Amino acid sequence: MNQRLSLVTLGVRDLNKARSFYESLGWHPSPASCEQVCFFQTGSMAIALYPMDALLGDSGKKGTVPVAGGITLGINVPLREEVDRELAIVLSRGATLLQPAIDTPWGGRTAYFADLDGHPWEITWAPMFPLGPKGELLLP
Amino acid sequence: MNQRLSLVTLGVRDLNKARSFYESLGWHPSPASCEQVCFFQTGSMAIALYPMDALLGDSGKKGTVPVAGGITLGINVPLREEVDRELAIVLSRGATLLQPAIDTPWGGRTAYFADLDGHPWEITWAPMFPLGPKGELLLP
Repeated sequence: MNQRLSLVTLGVRDLNKARSFYESLGWHPSPASCEQVCFFQTGSMAIALYPMDALLGDSGKKGTVPVAGGITLGINVPLREEVDRELAIVLSRGATLLQPAIDTPWGGRTAYFADLDGHPWEITWAPMFPLGPKGELLLP
Repeated sequence: MNQRLSLVTLGVRDLNKARSFYESLGWHPSPASCEQVCFFQTGSMAIALYPMDALLGDSGKKGTVPVAGGITLGINVPLREEVDRELAIVLSRGATLLQPAIDTPWGGRTAYFADLDGHPWEITWAPMFPLGPKGELLLP
């Protein structure tokens, strides 16, 4: 299986509300979006917003109940102070605070919020992982 | 908030077992990996395997319990028959079948499996989204 990730699909209760939330953060949907699904290009991959019921139907109910503490989605920022600034922005757009910004034991800074459907996002400054010219996270 | 995804962190019960599973699919951990976390470069971003307890601790318990049917992770393949071929490989490595390969109403083919910790993956052939030279999913 090729070492890549093409698409992260987030189940949402209300597609229009979810789309508006991400648009309020400055994201631009792809023209490939339609009434049933909304796509955002994110680097070499894409994020899809998709109604929860449809997601359950497509993937078989069993597998679509994630394990507790299962997954976090991270956005790395190039500057320490951006963690706090970005967190303030997303909270002002209706996100829920999960964990205020803190300095981490590994020398970075991180904060957690949940989007409208509870999907946990992490905003991270990780100085050991400099970002590429297009914001890519490029590991050693 | 920049339109990107830097890191998807998957909570796992046994880091060594989880790492071995992804290595058995042909994935190569980054040298940035250590005893506490395992990183894989995936295009412009990375996937991390991270012990569930630590993930719960880092992100605040509330937010780390994903909603039912919450998230699927997708790998797009360039050929229809690769869906079935890749599915057979991952199942032979210990993954759990969630949904056998089927032709979709939108003209593609897709199958779902869960990794050792239940994280749902989707293998998809989506002919309307040709892949880039490095396997990138590039939306219209």
